[in-house]
Amino acid sequence: MATGGSLGIGMVGYAFMGAAHSQAWRTAGRVFDLPLRPDMVALCGRNAAAAGAAAVRLGWSAVETDWRQLIARDDVHLIDICTPGDSHAEIAIAALEAGKHVLCEKPLANTVAEAEAMVAAAEVARGKGIRSMVAFNFRRVPAIALARSLVASGRLGTIRHVRAVYLQDWIVDPQFPLVWRLQKDKAGSGAVGDIGAHIVDAAQFILGDVLTGVSALTETFIKERPLPVAEGGPEGVAGDAGRAGDAGRTAGVGPVTVDDAALFFGRFAGGALASFEATRFAAGRKNSLRIEVNGSAGSLSFDMESMNELWFFDNTEDAHMAGFRRILVTEPTHPYMDAWWPPGHIIGYEHTFTHEVRDLLFAIADGTDPAPSFADGLQVQRVLAAVESSAANESTWQAIAAAPS
Amino acid sequence: MATGGSLGIGMVGYAFMGAAHSQAWRTAGRVFDLPLRPDMVALCGRNAAAAGAAAVRLGWSAVETDWRQLIARDDVHLIDICTPGDSHAEIAIAALEAGKHVLCEKPLANTVAEAEAMVAAAEVARGKGIRSMVAFNFRRVPAIALARSLVASGRLGTIRHVRAVYLQDWIVDPQFPLVWRLQKDKAGSGAVGDIGAHIVDAAQFILGDVLTGVSALTETFIKERPLPVAEGGPEGVAGDAGRAGDAGRTAGVGPVTVDDAALFFGRFAGGALASFEATRFAAGRKNSLRIEVNGSAGSLSFDMESMNELWFFDNTEDAHMAGFRRILVTEPTHPYMDAWWPPGHIIGYEHTFTHEVRDLLFAIADGTDPAPSFADGLQVQRVLAAVESSAANESTWQAIAAAPS
Amino acid sequence: MATGGSLGIGMVGYAFMGAAHSQAWRTAGRVFDLPLRPDMVALCGRNAAAAGAAAVRLGWSAVETDWRQLIARDDVHLIDICTPGDSHAEIAIAALEAGKHVLCEKPLANTVAEAEAMVAAAEVARGKGIRSMVAFNFRRVPAIALARSLVASGRLGTIRHVRAVYLQDWIVDPQFPLVWRLQKDKAGSGAVGDIGAHIVDAAQFILGDVLTGVSALTETFIKERPLPVAEGGPEGVAGDAGRAGDAGRTAGVGPVTVDDAALFFGRFAGGALASFEATRFAAGRKNSLRIEVNGSAGSLSFDMESMNELWFFDNTEDAHMAGFRRILVTEPTHPYMDAWWPPGHIIGYEHTFTHEVRDLLFAIADGTDPAPSFADGLQVQRVLAAVESSAANESTWQAIAAAPS
Amino acid sequence: MATGGSLGIGMVGYAFMGAAHSQAWRTAGRVFDLPLRPDMVALCGRNAAAAGAAAVRLGWSAVETDWRQLIARDDVHLIDICTPGDSHAEIAIAALEAGKHVLCEKPLANTVAEAEAMVAAAEVARGKGIRSMVAFNFRRVPAIALARSLVASGRLGTIRHVRAVYLQDWIVDPQFPLVWRLQKDKAGSGAVGDIGAHIVDAAQFILGDVLTGVSALTETFIKERPLPVAEGGPEGVAGDAGRAGDAGRTAGVGPVTVDDAALFFGRFAGGALASFEATRFAAGRKNSLRIEVNGSAGSLSFDMESMNELWFFDNTEDAHMAGFRRILVTEPTHPYMDAWWPPGHIIGYEHTFTHEVRDLLFAIADGTDPAPSFADGLQVQRVLAAVESSAANESTWQAIAAAPS
Repeated sequence: MATGGSLGIGMVGYAFMGAAHSQAWRTAGRVFDLPLRPDMVALCGRNAAAAGAAAVRLGWSAVETDWRQLIARDDVHLIDICTPGDSHAEIAIAALEAGKHVLCEKPLANTVAEAEAMVAAAEVARGKGIRSMVAFNFRRVPAIALARSLVASGRLGTIRHVRAVYLQDWIVDPQFPLVWRLQKDKAGSGAVGDIGAHIVDAAQFILGDVLTGVSALTETFIKERPLPVAEGGPEGVAGDAGRAGDAGRTAGVGPVTVDDAALFFGRFAGGALASFEATRFAAGRKNSLRIEVNGSAGSLSFDMESMNELWFFDNTEDAHMAGFRRILVTEPTHPYMDAWWPPGHIIGYEHTFTHEVRDLLFAIADGTDPAPSFADGLQVQRVLAAVESSAANESTWQAIAAAPS
Repeated sequence: MATGGSLGIGMVGYAFMGAAHSQAWRTAGRVFDLPLRPDMVALCGRNAAAAGAAAVRLGWSAVETDWRQLIARDDVHLIDICTPGDSHAEIAIAALEAGKHVLCEKPLANTVAEAEAMVAAAEVARGKGIRSMVAFNFRRVPAIALARSLVASGRLGTIRHVRAVYLQDWIVDPQFPLVWRLQKDKAGSGAVGDIGAHIVDAAQFILGDVLTGVSALTETFIKERPLPVAEGGPEGVAGDAGRAGDAGRTAGVGPVTVDDAALFFGRFAGGALASFEATRFAAGRKNSLRIEVNGSAGSLSFDMESMNELWFFDNTEDAHMAGFRRILVTEPTHPYMDAWWPPGHIIGYEHTFTHEVRDLLFAIADGTDPAPSFADGLQVQRVLAAVESSAANESTWQAIAAAPS
Repeated sequence: MATGGSLGIGMVGYAFMGAAHSQAWRTAGRVFDLPLRPDMVALCGRNAAAAGAAAVRLGWSAVETDWRQLIARDDVHLIDICTPGDSHAEIAIAALEAGKHVLCEKPLANTVAEAEAMVAAAEVARGKGIRSMVAFNFRRVPAIALARSLVASGRLGTIRHVRAVYLQDWIVDPQFPLVWRLQKDKAGSGAVGDIGAHIVDAAQFILGDVLTGVSALTETFIKERPLPVAEGGPEGVAGDAGRAGDAGRTAGVGPVTVDDAALFFGRFAGGALASFEATRFAAGRKNSLRIEVNGSAGSLSFDMESMNELWFFDNTEDAHMAGFRRILVTEPTHPYMDAWWPPGHIIGYEHTFTHEVRDLLFAIADGTDPAPSFADGLQVQRVLAAVESSAANESTWQAIAAAPS
Repeated sequence: MATGGSLGIGMVGYAFMGAAHSQAWRTAGRVFDLPLRPDMVALCGRNAAAAGAAAVRLGWSAVETDWRQLIARDDVHLIDICTPGDSHAEIAIAALEAGKHVLCEKPLANTVAEAEAMVAAAEVARGKGIRSMVAFNFRRVPAIALARSLVASGRLGTIRHVRAVYLQDWIVDPQFPLVWRLQKDKAGSGAVGDIGAHIVDAAQFILGDVLTGVSALTETFIKERPLPVAEGGPEGVAGDAGRAGDAGRTAGVGPVTVDDAALFFGRFAGGALASFEATRFAAGRKNSLRIEVNGSAGSLSFDMESMNELWFFDNTEDAHMAGFRRILVTEPTHPYMDAWWPPGHIIGYEHTFTHEVRDLLFAIADGTDPAPSFADGLQVQRVLAAVESSAANESTWQAIAAAPS
């Protein structure tokens, strides 16, 4: 229930991310006391019929087929960008220049140069009270937010290790088609940018620290795949995650131009060592984002497939009674959870987006900068660029420039 | 997105269950292709101000302060009863007699006699095309629905054992106040009716079979508790689950008139043995509804705290390779899951209600009987009555009459 | 390494339990500093050739074919009884009367009357400094010993619940033959005495309390089974656990005269409720002895299939950080573990017997009474008798007489 | 029970590894049908009194204080080397030249040059029927042996990923003393050689493949530590794992000259990517050797802290029923397990050594080459050398020469 005025939302793209964001915009005001009421003004997609159907289904009042028109609408105050990475920079910069707040899906952009331009635009807009945020939604998993607070409070002592993996298995089959997520011109990269970006951001977020260098190895196991006959890109049907093709009606094969898997390790500014692995070839691991942090005073462990649990080891206890404990992150004192159900009643993936728009609306209402900022997104982009550079250069160490403060 | 007309919904009660049902009514049409579009016409609560605030918050268009007025509205076609058990019979029967479909929270009623009257009313209404359903929402956990389908398909062979527990811990503290859930006149019973009802229904649902007798033991560990100064009952604030009091401002003590815990075992008509335990005194178990089923050809295991997982043991495999497998119930082929996210992206507690109203709307549109019916609710009530009777009679075996067909 | 003299051991039976005990007698002095050095003097079995081979294999110096001769040997000071329950009373009483210490496998006897006679004999022998002990080896699982110490120290507060199951699956197949463990005259009972005895003793041990009454249900799912052509009884080959038959060469069928499964619940003297289930029909559960204890200040959970772990929930912690913790019971401060490997290096099933003989040797050397005593074994026997009586009497509550102090 | 003659064993060193090997030599013939009976002839240690006490405790018939004398004994046919890595080459080569079989603890040596000399000596000895084996005991974990057989049989298809970690936490405390395992001259390296060696060998063993290159990062978090007043090295007390010092009576501080942690990734000859992490700074992880393997047809997962379990995902099954299954590796068909207890009765860490000497005795009796050979140990050494070289060279990729065939 909003206590302030309303804020007009315009969303570009309506596939997997668009559906998830829509659920968030519909729900946030029903469970949280919001300072601003989001109005789901218009959804934008190039195919008018498909976009229209999506708008009805997802709860948007109107449809635009040109994102420039969406930005131009007076009743739209915030642009929510749910398209693939190749269009992020253009849309976001235009929106910011038009004085619209921006929520942009991750990765922020497909290149560091694009990301830098976006940061510059965000900085200018910020001077005018316009807010921007990159949608690393895993920061809004209550267990991850709790992890960050524990590290920040010193409960883990000096951090020594982070090990993060993001394991999926949806392209193990060589006959899986060449969807847009496997094409460099649209997706920018493969596992690196899609899921590697998440674990880099999550690790940096939990530690409150940044990577200063990495060494990396990447691989494309399957070099060619069947071409899909028709495929969605930003217009893909809701829920397909840019993954769907039509294996039965292919039109030859094409080259896979992104990485299938990436392994890298790095150092944090504070001295911790970190290892990362992002792959779509881990048979049986559907969406296994796992992070473990080891500090001198304790450890944490998390798996997105069991996202309501945070495992904590308190190294200050006597070994006689010490052990990793499973904190069920459903107590009203846990981040975001006072809005939901009684203890033990778990939430799901989509709630991360509801929490995300909640935080963004508070920042806009309060006139503060939401996090993660575009600069945070750029920092992640620089890490990913260093990963690709190291992998292309015999895994040699690549230093990472500090992000703008 | 509904393809047919709309159906006016009126909801009575707006505490924990009311909030959960509201989320379901708001969401079902956004993720499922529904044959009827639910209109959230009016919410009913005795306190006009509180009910009005809840209606705005939860997304209801209007407010009624008398459930009879709600039933009388022409634009309301379905009454959703979210009040404590003592008012279920009166509201449900009146609604059915008025030609309104009814969705009634569990337990169906506080006594077998009330439940029988409700079944009779439902039977009459059914002849006029009016549908009724009792809200055992755990049947709509995808993993539980999958469990049922596996048993029904014979994958487990002859069922030998069911062991089901529902463990909570919210009244371990003797200073926790005497809320309505601890008062027999309002709640009917304690752990027996509140959470025991769920495991009885879930076990019967998964097996597709009914209990024919039980032996039971119940206990009230804490005989007296502080009286809460003010407490909600059906008007309780959203999210409190009928649990909240005000420990700091009590007005003396009162007797706990319901059970704190119940243990019982029984036999199924098909020959399986079953054990049950329902307690609010299992420190550390927040909402742990666990069920294991052992059959001659395989076993299943489930825990609501990890509700997206179903563990399956295939006893037809060679022992060399056999093991309990963790099926992550997030595949599009799994019950209800084609409407949600890609594999590995989990859902939460509230989704069970969204699935529930989906199924109810389909039944209404198709002119079929939704399950669980009021007769199913009565069957559970008879089991619970037998539990109480056995516990009062030296745990002696109590036969359970078959439910009406 | 023994610091005192030696003690001559004579063992009767050399099947599963005989092999396990032999490993214990061989190993205890190699890892613990013992006050007495066990000499493995002689093994006793009726078949001279088989017993002779077993003695060589298991490390016994001599063979006897008559247990009376074994008892009569001057160089034997302790009789270790590893036969089925029907011979326990006769052998144990004769040994005690001959002034030999006795270690007797569980269950103590097949009937309460036999157990009472054994207790009487043990009491007389005790006056002469002769020690007796019943081999509930699970008390020597470090995690279970730790559990007991936590309960005894008050870490769990007032105990409210115990739930214990012992699940196996080795007779799910109806063609599994009618081995001695399925014959009442040899085994006394089925799951009740074989594995039910373990969970009753373990629960009473951990709580330091006794059951005062029970209600029970038992079942024999498969009424007839193929007769094994040859089968071992006390002479069975090492490792077969009294389970082996020869399914391929059967000689007709015979009636199963023991229970396949038993469910019971009860009350402890201190007010806790307890539920128990013992079955050999839980497909996929190989040796799953699980116990959970809930108290006002905390909870414990244990599973024998992961016997080096004890799960502890500290209810005195703030809910924000509380969670079941997995204590890896491999620290040098944990019971028995200073004798073994560094932290994290686990031990196995057989170690429980090594710990058992260690404790027995210390008691003999110290002139103290080892536990569990024959009286403890009798107490368990009375619980099992009450289980069978209740099951035969419509599950009606059966009070259990207090054990002799 | 040995069916052939006996084989005289002489063991050098009697600390942690010596105690574990002694348990194996004592036990192997009691549970397996061995072709040769091991005679525990003599234990060797420089301190006569301490070695004498250890010999009595651990079951050795005699004591030598000079390993050359041990080798010279006619009644010793096999030298079991349980000393730190700096003495492996000298002892092993002398033993082989004297015509004694050799079992050598890992890592094979502290340098590649030493390892190469050992391989050369082993090759010469092999021509004379003398056998040599390096003690990578984790190959004898039944679950790991099962993993290898599954990969070898093609059940996993084309292997894409291996991720292996070996996490310990025993030096997290900066006040933990500078024991020999933290000194380069004695230990050769830190986590790299001690535990990194294990995961490299285990990964190569399971895959039946070798690493062809690596990139690495190492770190010494704590640069100086208190000097222990007295500390054991090869003479350390049984069970201390080269870890014990005397923190209370230190004599200043000294530099830590080995790595605390190492991260590396690599490629297998067959195309799989692999990531490795070895650390003693993972608070709460006591002995967590974990390996996951992902192939096109399935995946495996293992954790040494739950060493009786192997998790298997069958990617050839329909996703509807697929899931990681927990195979309890205690069936008689599983590697080594027919010698132990009934299904579900777990074994422990020390059993890996019992299996190891069993396999070695069979190889000697059969006149075949035991595995892992010294050449296998050299291959691991080359990987570790490449790890150190890459870490010293900006993590740049280091190719690994193929081991001699």
